[in-house]
Amino acid sequence: MSGDNQIRFGLLTCTNIVRKLSRAINLSPNATISAIATTSSIEEAKSFTKSNNFPPNTKIHISYESLLEDPDVDAVYFPIPTRLHVEWATRAARKGKHILLDKPVALNVSEFDQIVEACEVNGVQFMDGTQWMHNPRTYKIKEFVNDLESFGQIKSVHCCFSFAANDDFLKHDIRVKPGLDGLGALGDAGWYTIQAILLANDFKLPKTVTALPGCVLNDAGIVLSCGALFDWEDGISATMYCSFLANLTMEITAIGTKGTLRVHDFVIPYRETETAFTTSGRGCVSEHKVMTELPQEACMVIEFARLVGEIKNRGAKPDGFWLSISRKTQLIVDETEASLPLNRKF
Amino acid sequence: MSGDNQIRFGLLTCTNIVRKLSRAINLSPNATISAIATTSSIEEAKSFTKSNNFPPNTKIHISYESLLEDPDVDAVYFPIPTRLHVEWATRAARKGKHILLDKPVALNVSEFDQIVEACEVNGVQFMDGTQWMHNPRTYKIKEFVNDLESFGQIKSVHCCFSFAANDDFLKHDIRVKPGLDGLGALGDAGWYTIQAILLANDFKLPKTVTALPGCVLNDAGIVLSCGALFDWEDGISATMYCSFLANLTMEITAIGTKGTLRVHDFVIPYRETETAFTTSGRGCVSEHKVMTELPQEACMVIEFARLVGEIKNRGAKPDGFWLSISRKTQLIVDETEASLPLNRKF
Repeated sequence: MSGDNQIRFGLLTCTNIVRKLSRAINLSPNATISAIATTSSIEEAKSFTKSNNFPPNTKIHISYESLLEDPDVDAVYFPIPTRLHVEWATRAARKGKHILLDKPVALNVSEFDQIVEACEVNGVQFMDGTQWMHNPRTYKIKEFVNDLESFGQIKSVHCCFSFAANDDFLKHDIRVKPGLDGLGALGDAGWYTIQAILLANDFKLPKTVTALPGCVLNDAGIVLSCGALFDWEDGISATMYCSFLANLTMEITAIGTKGTLRVHDFVIPYRETETAFTTSGRGCVSEHKVMTELPQEACMVIEFARLVGEIKNRGAKPDGFWLSISRKTQLIVDETEASLPLNRKF
Repeated sequence: MSGDNQIRFGLLTCTNIVRKLSRAINLSPNATISAIATTSSIEEAKSFTKSNNFPPNTKIHISYESLLEDPDVDAVYFPIPTRLHVEWATRAARKGKHILLDKPVALNVSEFDQIVEACEVNGVQFMDGTQWMHNPRTYKIKEFVNDLESFGQIKSVHCCFSFAANDDFLKHDIRVKPGLDGLGALGDAGWYTIQAILLANDFKLPKTVTALPGCVLNDAGIVLSCGALFDWEDGISATMYCSFLANLTMEITAIGTKGTLRVHDFVIPYRETETAFTTSGRGCVSEHKVMTELPQEACMVIEFARLVGEIKNRGAKPDGFWLSISRKTQLIVDETEASLPLNRKF
């Protein structure tokens, strides 16, 4: 794709996650970086853009507002605290900017619905920034769990994502602060597990959602660790566990009537360009390798820019698939949160 | 060990599980088969003993009573329906026979306590027939989850054991019959998962036990599939899933603050004499291999016969360790059963 047809990203903040995403955009043939907004110093932003190989003509804005006014920005990536999502995503939509929004997409589904409405009214594309969903391995996994011959009917899924946050994270990270990402480990690590469970169930919402006893909160009432149960008709059930307090584990075990899927590194693959998963059934255990030329975050950018390109260059309507997945995930996060054993405010 | 010091087993029934256990006894240097009881024809029993390489002088009894009277029997293996355990195990204990009893050990803990009492009063050794607990790999797993440096404090365990039973099993097996093994998949597949979860928690009983919604029962009210949650202090939790209706899966995922354990074939290892498990922590994933000269069922027989030998040859008292594990497992089975969403009778 020629440079003229590349989708031009505006990025908010000079943070590590933007560093990772800017590399992904640079690796994506259909996307480029046109601007960044910083709320700290321009000097710092200049140094950030240089050290991360941003295009030399990247504009630096000194406010989010200013970036949203930039006519050379097609789409905005928002790695900002969840509490700010509804304000900035709706403002961006009203300015006709397509939206790549970090998870969790909002503090609750009614906030998210404001974003949905703004996207619909303004015809902008929405996607949440859950990178592993775009890994080619994920498509292979989906193919396996949908295969009635090899996997059969789904019966049970267990998914966990935990990492042992250090003291600094547990004191200062936005994910443990009531004013910022009030959903804590549930909105962060839990988001991935819920989306994996939805994927294994062909994105069908469960019949009931129940937080499990034994959740751990910090002094401000933010979830540091919790689990939940989901169940569907016909004895289909799933459990998830998410935690900031346990060793790095990123596991999916999905069991069908005929096959079993195991993934050990579903969120961030051990290797960037060679991923694996295991299936078993009919007495055989098989290791599958999936080679990918690009890291999963670039796959995400390419898919997002492709959808934006359809709108920008071909007059297509926004594609609602990813938005619907985000909404379902947020719904389950909300239901889990509502059934947590303790009442909390944030 | 010379033949004179071998523990002499009496076996009940000519069934497949006795075939497997007789092979294990034949492989165990400290055990031998001295008798078998059949309730069908002597001819059939003779052919069974021959085709399974029983010692040529194995006595054939035509009733369980008769085997229990046999002075050449030190210990009895009971692969009989759970409903019959309390009667036959207590009768065996009163005859001074040591007891290797299949799981689940009883229909409930109060029945099991009658067996416990009979064993104590009569000074006989008790062990349940959960073979994987005696696999050398299990000791290595235990070592890992107890290691505060590599594994840290336990936080979460998920364990599942499922297999897709065929129509014949689902119609006729004793494990789906109210009059025989009334605990269904919970007492069978669930037993293993509960013992694995106890093992990972250093055999500490959980604070609460809750069956999860979505259990599947057959027309007679027997559990074909269910799940449960267990939780301890300090946000430590475990979930289990057991099923006769899903593909063969035998998974332990235990997460500590510093390490993670994964076992994919904990109940019946893929290979008899070379087993594996995976640990991760500090950014490394390690595959561990454990070589075993003998299959795990022979390891179980050797350990049981060793304990019986201590009593028979050295005047030791019965060792209460395995009995205490059985009792804890039965307690959790009972609690899970009691919290199942439907009231059932069996």
